[in-house]
Amino acid sequence: MNITDNFYSLATPGVQRLIPYVPGKPIEELERELGLSDIVKLASNENPLGPSPMALAAIHATLPDLARYPDGNGFKLKRALAEKFSVDMSQITLGNGSNEILELLARAFLTPAHEVIFSQHAFAVYPIVTQAVGATGVVIPAREYGHDLDAMLAAVNDKTRLIFIANPNNPTGTLLAPDELRHFIAALPSHVLCVLDEAYYEFIDPQSRADSIAWLIAHPNLIVTRTFSKAYGLAGLRVGYSFSNPRVADFLNRVRQPFNNNMLALAAAEAALADHEHLQRTIATNNDGMQQLIDGFRQLGLEWIPSAGNFVSVDVKRSGDGVYQALLQKGVIVRPVANYEMPDYLRISIGTPTENSRCLEALQAVLADV
Amino acid sequence: MNITDNFYSLATPGVQRLIPYVPGKPIEELERELGLSDIVKLASNENPLGPSPMALAAIHATLPDLARYPDGNGFKLKRALAEKFSVDMSQITLGNGSNEILELLARAFLTPAHEVIFSQHAFAVYPIVTQAVGATGVVIPAREYGHDLDAMLAAVNDKTRLIFIANPNNPTGTLLAPDELRHFIAALPSHVLCVLDEAYYEFIDPQSRADSIAWLIAHPNLIVTRTFSKAYGLAGLRVGYSFSNPRVADFLNRVRQPFNNNMLALAAAEAALADHEHLQRTIATNNDGMQQLIDGFRQLGLEWIPSAGNFVSVDVKRSGDGVYQALLQKGVIVRPVANYEMPDYLRISIGTPTENSRCLEALQAVLADV
Repeated sequence: MNITDNFYSLATPGVQRLIPYVPGKPIEELERELGLSDIVKLASNENPLGPSPMALAAIHATLPDLARYPDGNGFKLKRALAEKFSVDMSQITLGNGSNEILELLARAFLTPAHEVIFSQHAFAVYPIVTQAVGATGVVIPAREYGHDLDAMLAAVNDKTRLIFIANPNNPTGTLLAPDELRHFIAALPSHVLCVLDEAYYEFIDPQSRADSIAWLIAHPNLIVTRTFSKAYGLAGLRVGYSFSNPRVADFLNRVRQPFNNNMLALAAAEAALADHEHLQRTIATNNDGMQQLIDGFRQLGLEWIPSAGNFVSVDVKRSGDGVYQALLQKGVIVRPVANYEMPDYLRISIGTPTENSRCLEALQAVLADV
Repeated sequence: MNITDNFYSLATPGVQRLIPYVPGKPIEELERELGLSDIVKLASNENPLGPSPMALAAIHATLPDLARYPDGNGFKLKRALAEKFSVDMSQITLGNGSNEILELLARAFLTPAHEVIFSQHAFAVYPIVTQAVGATGVVIPAREYGHDLDAMLAAVNDKTRLIFIANPNNPTGTLLAPDELRHFIAALPSHVLCVLDEAYYEFIDPQSRADSIAWLIAHPNLIVTRTFSKAYGLAGLRVGYSFSNPRVADFLNRVRQPFNNNMLALAAAEAALADHEHLQRTIATNNDGMQQLIDGFRQLGLEWIPSAGNFVSVDVKRSGDGVYQALLQKGVIVRPVANYEMPDYLRISIGTPTENSRCLEALQAVLADV
């Protein structure tokens, strides 16, 4: 046997079968491939207004210290989060994106003997972090593109250790009613941890938001994850966080790297958290842009899944991959979701008014052709 | 049983016994605790000249894109590394610090059935990443504070999957002869991966450096890890990398998060790699500072371990923790290494001439008292 063929058998069984996440196509990559410029990217649910100016100022102020290690405890950011959300600092775990929090949960609590429950059409990272540690994913069929909580509860058994709930869900944008969600969490046995992934929380209509952080007191097996990558406009810096029981946070903090968040990320996130004006402008832009896209879909005779996030999945009634490729040729990057078992859909992030118009025009032209 | 007591039993066996890494004390933390200012930190082997000006310029240029996700493939940084070190891009894995590369290796190749070999007094992260996945660490007693390669080879058995070699070693600074090291690697069986941790490579006297990257061709089970945190002055940004067989890199890249390196980190590292002037000034400052500290130790009647890195471990002939605490009161942070089984030693990073003087003066005063 050639020694390099050996490496497959040396990898752990979970890693041998691991298929990596496929990110949205970067603008630079499309530029390299097609020689295009003026590209519109509505593929990764990024903030079209850019980062908070207060975050940029914090980065500038931090640059002279860049040869130092970051504060491994993230003291200042944790203090700011604790104040804003009325939690204790011991309940907070900081991650290199909330993606890392999901991964830390898998590494801290799962072995190959365990099962993990998540929904069909839910975020692709759930099966990946499950597979990476060799645990077994249990996919529950969706109900109208959203989580079927009754079926998820019925799937719980002695082997179940984690349940992932995305609310709103990505890529469908579906939202669960707070009461329904809380009843579900209350019904879980104590050996099951429930991860409530609220990456898009800030975009939810305030009247429809679950008061999930307040539930932590009564439900110590709940973990709420959020991110600075979406509404806060810091996807490039990778900062996510979770609120949980302090004992759970202790295990997550043991598993994480000592310096998992970098210095500029910590400083920028702390500043962004205080930039209410940028957040409000982001939410208003999203609401207007969502209406703009929906109006456009209606004119094109397309149906979409009503979304509580900063993106919307639209039924293009033919191969989503084909439409995606044709849109690329016009310099518009959206997200095909065939890997989410939605082959006829495209997920489109809400952009600026100009970006939304570019996208709708390109879509109209492509649908006339394909 | 109270439900929160339950969490311990829910954690994986490896994680239950995990004791986190203890980083060097941050300057801000000492300021908060003692109300001191003008603090000298020589505790974390950071670059006393700060970050490369070219890296800072690259950060500035990247700030407008911060709401975008980073390039998950790190194309530009990999291209720059491939050119500089004459490797193929497929051999490169980028990490959130080389710490993450060490962790990815453990997660990709270790299960609780495996053993991992490392040396007494070697970098504390090796036992941590081993423990986190529930594998068994095998500690080989050091020879004159360095790696005993004969004993390490003799410890290899059917369960051995990884060997960590730090060269130079942290915190002792010891360096292995290139020939000795290569013979060791050549003698390993094909089911054992050898991780050569060269975090301090750039500080080695050029005539004593191993040509480790060239060895990758003949030794596909070798992984060479390096970092931008030390000589390149970007500890705050967390960028490390490894060169390996492409098959090994493929598994590491499957296990890593899709966006493990952030956007500013990627841009800064690429620019720092091209800043030869800053690197040369860093190395010259280190050589001068090492001589300054050694001269000072000699005058204080202290012995030290000759070091090839940007730090030196000195025998203070009494409790290192006691001297460390007394130095803190004088605003000087160094690193106690009792957790490395070196209770009478302190590890001191090489600083600027002024910082080195401050440290030596404080040390002289403290040793007269303690």
